[in-house]
Amino acid sequence: MTRTRFHQGLDDLKQKLLAMGGMAEQAVERAAQAFQSRDVTICELVLRDEAHINSMEREVDENALDLLAMQQPMAVDLRFIVACIKINADLERVGDQAVNIAERVIDMASYPKSELNVDVPRMASLTIAMVRDALNAFLTGDADLARSVLERDDLVDDMNREIFKAAEFAMTHETEGHRDALDTLIVARNLERVADHATNIAEDVIFWVRGADVRHHAQL
Amino acid sequence: MTRTRFHQGLDDLKQKLLAMGGMAEQAVERAAQAFQSRDVTICELVLRDEAHINSMEREVDENALDLLAMQQPMAVDLRFIVACIKINADLERVGDQAVNIAERVIDMASYPKSELNVDVPRMASLTIAMVRDALNAFLTGDADLARSVLERDDLVDDMNREIFKAAEFAMTHETEGHRDALDTLIVARNLERVADHATNIAEDVIFWVRGADVRHHAQL
Repeated sequence: MTRTRFHQGLDDLKQKLLAMGGMAEQAVERAAQAFQSRDVTICELVLRDEAHINSMEREVDENALDLLAMQQPMAVDLRFIVACIKINADLERVGDQAVNIAERVIDMASYPKSELNVDVPRMASLTIAMVRDALNAFLTGDADLARSVLERDDLVDDMNREIFKAAEFAMTHETEGHRDALDTLIVARNLERVADHATNIAEDVIFWVRGADVRHHAQL
Repeated sequence: MTRTRFHQGLDDLKQKLLAMGGMAEQAVERAAQAFQSRDVTICELVLRDEAHINSMEREVDENALDLLAMQQPMAVDLRFIVACIKINADLERVGDQAVNIAERVIDMASYPKSELNVDVPRMASLTIAMVRDALNAFLTGDADLARSVLERDDLVDDMNREIFKAAEFAMTHETEGHRDALDTLIVARNLERVADHATNIAEDVIFWVRGADVRHHAQL
C-alpha cells in the first residue's frame, strides 16, 4: 500500500460519503414535497430508499476502518477519516428523519387538511439548504461555509418555536384539524432534527479543516 | 509507546467514556425527575452540566485520535476506538435531549398542570434503563445485553405513539391545558430520541464485539 494508493482510498471514501449525502438530501426533499402535496406515492419512494441509505452507511464505515488499518495515517488524514465516520452516522439519521416525515404524511393523507398558519415549506427549504451547504463544505473543505450552517441553526429553531405556538393557537381556537396540527408540529420537529444533523456535519467539517490548519501551523 | 501503554490508553478511553455516560444518564434522570415535580431548580442543574458534558466529548475525541495516531492498531482495537468515537457523539446528544426536556419543564412550570392521561414517568424509566444497559453492554462487551436494548426501542416508540393519541384526545375534548399537553408531547419525543441514542450506542457495542468475534474466527 503506497501513499498514493492510500490517498486514492481517501478520495474514494469522500466520493462515497458525498453520494450517500446526496441520497439523504434527496430523501428530505421528497419528504418535504410529499408534505406539501400530501402525496403518498412520494412517501413510498422515501421508505423504499431507506434500506439503500443504511447499506451505504455500513459500506462507508468499513471503508473508513480499512483505511485506518492500512497504514498509520498522518494527523490530518486521521481527522478526515474520523470526520467521515461521524458525518456518515449523521447522514443515516437524516435519512431516518425523512422516513419519519413520510410516515407522518401518510397519516395526514387520511385526514382532511387543516389551514394551519405555518410556513413548513420555508422551514424545509432552509433545512435542506443547510444539509446541502454542509455537504459542500465537506466537499471543498470550506470552514467558512460550515460556520454559516451553524449560524442558521438558530433560525430553524425559531421557526420551530413559531410552529409550536401556531399549533397551540389552532388547537385552542379551532374545533377541528387537531390531528393535522399535531402532525404538522411533528414534521416541523423532524425538520429541526435534520437541521441539527446538518449542524453536526458542519462541526465535523470544521474539526477536520481546523485540524489541518493547526497542523499546518505546526501546533499539532 | 509499547503495546502495554497502548492498552492502558484504551482502558483510559473506556473509563473516560463511561464517566461521560454516567453524566449523560444523570442528566436524563434529573430532567425526568424535574418533569415529574415541575422543579425548576433541578432543571438548572441539567443546564449547568451541559458545558461539562460538551468538554468531556472533546476530550474523548482527542484521546481517541491520539490512540489512532500512536500506532497501527489491530482490527479489534480499531473497531473499539471507532465505537468509542460514535458512542461519544451519541452521549453528547443524550445530554442535549436532557437540556431540551429541562427547558420544556421550565416552560411548563409557568402554566397550570393539566391531568393528561399519559405515563411519561414509565417511558422515562424505560428510556433511562436503555441508556444504562447500553453503557453496561459497552463496559462488559456484552452483545446480548446490547441486543436487548435494541428490542426495547419499539416499546418506547409505542409509548410515544400512545402519548401522541392521548395528547390529541385531550386537545380535542378539553378546553384548557393545551399548552401543557403539547409540552408533554414534546418531552415524550425527547425521551424517544434518548432511546434512539441508546439504540445507536447498543449497535456500536455490537459492531465492536462482533468485529472481535469475527476476528476471533479468523474471518477478518
